[in-house]
Amino acid sequence: MNQLDEQERLKHFLTIEGLSRALLTEVLDTAERFSPVGERAVKNVPLLRGKTVVNLFFEPSTRTRTTFELAAKRLSADIINLNIAASATTKGESLTDTLRTLEAMQCDMFVVRHQNSGAAAFIAKKVAPHISVINAGDGRYQHPTQAMLDMFTIRRVKQNFNDLIVAIVGDITHSRVARSEIQALSTLGVAEIRVVGPKTLIPDKIEALGAQVFNDIETGIAGADVVIMLRLQQERMNSPLLPSAQEYFQSYGLTEQRLKLADKNAIVMHPGPINRGIEIDSAVADGPQSVILNQVVHGIAVRMAVMSLVIGAHAAGTN
Amino acid sequence: MNQLDEQERLKHFLTIEGLSRALLTEVLDTAERFSPVGERAVKNVPLLRGKTVVNLFFEPSTRTRTTFELAAKRLSADIINLNIAASATTKGESLTDTLRTLEAMQCDMFVVRHQNSGAAAFIAKKVAPHISVINAGDGRYQHPTQAMLDMFTIRRVKQNFNDLIVAIVGDITHSRVARSEIQALSTLGVAEIRVVGPKTLIPDKIEALGAQVFNDIETGIAGADVVIMLRLQQERMNSPLLPSAQEYFQSYGLTEQRLKLADKNAIVMHPGPINRGIEIDSAVADGPQSVILNQVVHGIAVRMAVMSLVIGAHAAGTN
Amino acid sequence: MNQLDEQERLKHFLTIEGLSRALLTEVLDTAERFSPVGERAVKNVPLLRGKTVVNLFFEPSTRTRTTFELAAKRLSADIINLNIAASATTKGESLTDTLRTLEAMQCDMFVVRHQNSGAAAFIAKKVAPHISVINAGDGRYQHPTQAMLDMFTIRRVKQNFNDLIVAIVGDITHSRVARSEIQALSTLGVAEIRVVGPKTLIPDKIEALGAQVFNDIETGIAGADVVIMLRLQQERMNSPLLPSAQEYFQSYGLTEQRLKLADKNAIVMHPGPINRGIEIDSAVADGPQSVILNQVVHGIAVRMAVMSLVIGAHAAGTN
Repeated sequence: MNQLDEQERLKHFLTIEGLSRALLTEVLDTAERFSPVGERAVKNVPLLRGKTVVNLFFEPSTRTRTTFELAAKRLSADIINLNIAASATTKGESLTDTLRTLEAMQCDMFVVRHQNSGAAAFIAKKVAPHISVINAGDGRYQHPTQAMLDMFTIRRVKQNFNDLIVAIVGDITHSRVARSEIQALSTLGVAEIRVVGPKTLIPDKIEALGAQVFNDIETGIAGADVVIMLRLQQERMNSPLLPSAQEYFQSYGLTEQRLKLADKNAIVMHPGPINRGIEIDSAVADGPQSVILNQVVHGIAVRMAVMSLVIGAHAAGTN
Repeated sequence: MNQLDEQERLKHFLTIEGLSRALLTEVLDTAERFSPVGERAVKNVPLLRGKTVVNLFFEPSTRTRTTFELAAKRLSADIINLNIAASATTKGESLTDTLRTLEAMQCDMFVVRHQNSGAAAFIAKKVAPHISVINAGDGRYQHPTQAMLDMFTIRRVKQNFNDLIVAIVGDITHSRVARSEIQALSTLGVAEIRVVGPKTLIPDKIEALGAQVFNDIETGIAGADVVIMLRLQQERMNSPLLPSAQEYFQSYGLTEQRLKLADKNAIVMHPGPINRGIEIDSAVADGPQSVILNQVVHGIAVRMAVMSLVIGAHAAGTN
Repeated sequence: MNQLDEQERLKHFLTIEGLSRALLTEVLDTAERFSPVGERAVKNVPLLRGKTVVNLFFEPSTRTRTTFELAAKRLSADIINLNIAASATTKGESLTDTLRTLEAMQCDMFVVRHQNSGAAAFIAKKVAPHISVINAGDGRYQHPTQAMLDMFTIRRVKQNFNDLIVAIVGDITHSRVARSEIQALSTLGVAEIRVVGPKTLIPDKIEALGAQVFNDIETGIAGADVVIMLRLQQERMNSPLLPSAQEYFQSYGLTEQRLKLADKNAIVMHPGPINRGIEIDSAVADGPQSVILNQVVHGIAVRMAVMSLVIGAHAAGTN
């Protein structure tokens, strides 16, 4: 699925894969322009007034749904929340028919969350030409707006990407966040990308994406400028892939002690929600090097940027 | 329950029964004026700004709720979604008390969906004079906005109603859509209304409404200008009224083969959601004679029209 | 938790306890200015445009959530409804992390409903300085906006508070409404506050708040100017504290007969939803002395007042 239009501009936002450095930079620069909006007394801009955005969530996620809802409202769009699991399927309607129906209601954008990898791209392929699709997380595949808000957060602190060592720690195999981040970091030209975790949670061909594998957290984060901790999913905790939450923390949890091995100006990131005492110690999560809440702040601006870019409001300002 | 005010204008919109041809035509003409709004870059008009609309759904229906929500938002109204089954009853409040409370909150319009026939009219009788009630489907009785969007769709293609043969196929007995449509078609003066279905699913006195009964689909749709397929409800499929879904399709499913018996310019309609392979073949549903998605498009304009008419914005334009 | 800022203005609205008569009067006067808004054709004012309000409901309450949602929309704020029980906890996030996340999303106000006493104050203590917290009911502790809309309703009818005898009847022990009302009535200087109910439902030290205890409804409401009936909670009905709903009505239900014992101009109030035939007879609830629906009407204006006061819009008009 091509997510670009003929002028090579974003039509959909489905995956980081294949996007140019110029385009990722355009997203970051646009987000930079939206960033002050959130701090103003009046946080709305009229950029998407009269547009209809649908939050099409096949998998529940209050946090992600809320950020997209806020981003849409701050752009003055109308937004409809649809929890598909709970609705259309009760009448046995097919996905395609649901999409056709929403299109016919003259919606302009679908924000899609789905438990299956590739679902957003599948939907983008199916929809009418006037609809833009934004991937809000699909299976193990991609979570591109999360990756972009992470890039935005890194750039805010580190200014540029060139000399950075970035370590991503945790369950790489099942993480759509990790996959999107590795591609974004690679495209933006960081010096070194490391993935850190137990062998059972690191996929086989990850080196092909340009990442180095470490099974030991101490060496994995040594000298790193950015440490990105991934959330350990509950369903993984009691699987044969992992011994237990305690042992995981023992081996891979980020403690103050371990963080000292990273660069002294290293920042600590996490996509949230945090499992305190499982993948990260509270002292680190709430400590001076943590930028976890900054990520949330930037999430709104980045989503406003992506929404306005895909809808073709390239030239418009933020009044 | 009289749904007209003293000037014979719509105060509520509860049933097609008893409405004049002039009034139905006014709804269609108003919807015609709203129709271009959905295709504009900015799809909002300020007609109902500062009005409060309540989606009062006693029976879940994502599709209908969403169209009313979109219609209200495009008219710039504030809208509150209330799923009554899940809320007030948990505190054991009576329906009347719920209505009184919503009235006291200075709401202007209730869009009512209910599993019981007559519920919308009952509510319209109970509410304070400043509230308008729109029936979004009540039991087996009426679904008047669905009927009007169907009339709108027919008029768009066929220009006028006079010479038309319209066949409604399926479970006539349990269909509020069929009941509303027969009355609308009759009032608008079509040449011939046919109802087509197994004896077990056609009510006894349907001829009194001006419809001819056919138990055989081939003769029922022969020469028809409009073929309206009804949704077969799941709960009917394994009832003594019907043998099985497969046999139903065998006897009453609309196939390309059968559609050839209708007029060569015949259009095919369906209120949605479609049961593909049960009441209609995919080749027909997605084929060139299908106007099923046009019905959805028109649903927004028709609901905007009805909402603005009942709220007394007769003279207002769409800016 | 101090709910006032350094200029002694409302920063949060958590409890009636400790608020001055001047401040309560300011709330009532502000609500008085908002009151005509609900009767206008356009019920919106731009006072909170571009602000983000979050309905943070840990305990379901359609009625209260809806009034806050309407109040926020009429002030032109953006509002997000979060049912916390159903969302964050499924991912095991702590309350603090949820709050930090919402803060980072640049929300301006949390409307909090919680089953635990003190929850709103706890949250107000935790949040960033730019956030205002409004208590929409916490455990058995406080429901301050309910108390203020009751005061507003009393003042509307009785003009001032000085000479009034007010009787509160029902389950005083478990009622956050009663606690807030007693404090508001006392601060506003009513002549006499009475609490009326069975010994098992009146807390030990209630006299310390300035209320007189009556276990007999006939003497309790004798000569009263205002009779406030409390809702009997379902969970109390089959507890050892009470014999049965019928016996409760026998002993404490407000009937027309009993109401004759109050002042002839007495008004009857109830926070809703009503249990007809349990704490109040329908003839009284719907009778000429009932102002129960007026309470709902005033609820919107009072909540608009509180929301605009805490957000610092002291000087602003209502356009």
